[in-house]
Amino acid sequence: MPEKVKCEMRSWENVYQVSRKLAEKIKRSGYQPDIIIGLARGGWVPARNLCDFLGVKDLVSLKMEHWGVTATPDGEAKVKFPIKLNLSGKNVLVVDDCSDTGKSLVEAKKYVEKLRPKQARTATMQIFDTTPKEGIPDFYVEKIPWIWVIYPWNMTEDLINLVSKLLGKRGKMHIDHIRKGLEEEFEVSIDAKFLKEIMLESERRNKAMRIGDEEDHWISVVE
Amino acid sequence: MPEKVKCEMRSWENVYQVSRKLAEKIKRSGYQPDIIIGLARGGWVPARNLCDFLGVKDLVSLKMEHWGVTATPDGEAKVKFPIKLNLSGKNVLVVDDCSDTGKSLVEAKKYVEKLRPKQARTATMQIFDTTPKEGIPDFYVEKIPWIWVIYPWNMTEDLINLVSKLLGKRGKMHIDHIRKGLEEEFEVSIDAKFLKEIMLESERRNKAMRIGDEEDHWISVVE
Repeated sequence: MPEKVKCEMRSWENVYQVSRKLAEKIKRSGYQPDIIIGLARGGWVPARNLCDFLGVKDLVSLKMEHWGVTATPDGEAKVKFPIKLNLSGKNVLVVDDCSDTGKSLVEAKKYVEKLRPKQARTATMQIFDTTPKEGIPDFYVEKIPWIWVIYPWNMTEDLINLVSKLLGKRGKMHIDHIRKGLEEEFEVSIDAKFLKEIMLESERRNKAMRIGDEEDHWISVVE
Repeated sequence: MPEKVKCEMRSWENVYQVSRKLAEKIKRSGYQPDIIIGLARGGWVPARNLCDFLGVKDLVSLKMEHWGVTATPDGEAKVKFPIKLNLSGKNVLVVDDCSDTGKSLVEAKKYVEKLRPKQARTATMQIFDTTPKEGIPDFYVEKIPWIWVIYPWNMTEDLINLVSKLLGKRGKMHIDHIRKGLEEEFEVSIDAKFLKEIMLESERRNKAMRIGDEEDHWISVVE
């Protein structure tokens, strides 16, 4: 997550409808995958939805290592948990939530193509104005100005990261100011009760710490 | 899916809240997983949610073969897409949507334990009154009378299966009667527009076929 960032929260219903539209595009193209590969962790929910919409039973996960192709001695894309896959004669669909730099998607497709499937295609729900040409998937639904999309399955982690940024910058903060800071700096509105839960979980993960008993002041914990 | 079956649809919001409660139970127990294993395909969404709630980065997928332990020559649990996993020193959490017979969960845990993790635990959102003792996960939220839970990520597939059952029993049916049949036999209410989409998708998958042009009559396609 970059330093300065405009965020947009997506609901479960939104994600479901966007995955449905993605499935419609894929169907209209005539492409019928035999197997769907969901990139961990962001691609899991759209990948699972596409299985349902497209009638695909085989669903596997792939986690690309982010240092990528150039950093490995043999120039191969690296995956974190290698999986034994026989893709011969199969139509493959590689799915992620969005394509930002496109790196994961490009590497995943390279990796898959070495396994000699019949065909391989890529799909995401969103791409950005800034997504480089090679990172644009074969199928996508929305092309939007760059923002940080907060998907519902990553809300806790994203909010903890945003709060850490605020605390890191300003030092000690009262929870009300954290809430205001989230709105002002990241355009993220959450209610007080939920923010309290996030702060407690952030404390459990040793990323923030509550100081004092009576007042709800928090500081960041340097990792 | 059994022949006669009472169904219950769950919303995305419901699944999210139940996964959150599941995470709370796990946190209260003091168990902190280092890696989450989501069983394909049903366990993917709760597994992804638990990663977020519990702060777990490593997420992998496992697909158990259903003929299971006894059917393999060497008595080992079989997985469909074998994955290279180093679990030594790690706390593992195996996640599925629900535990019905408990077979997948039990086999997955056996498979994981052969890889000698530090600890392995299991978690599902629901179990049933009928779930055998050995199939009860370490963590679950709801214990309910046996029903077929229609999760939102499997709605298309489940509805196509239910419609196939109706058509198989009664032969030619008008779409309005299919809708009534879903209500009467499975306690599933869906609106006419959505049912039409399901029928068209069912036709695309060669499971049902529309007959005649003017009236919306459908028959099942014998596979």
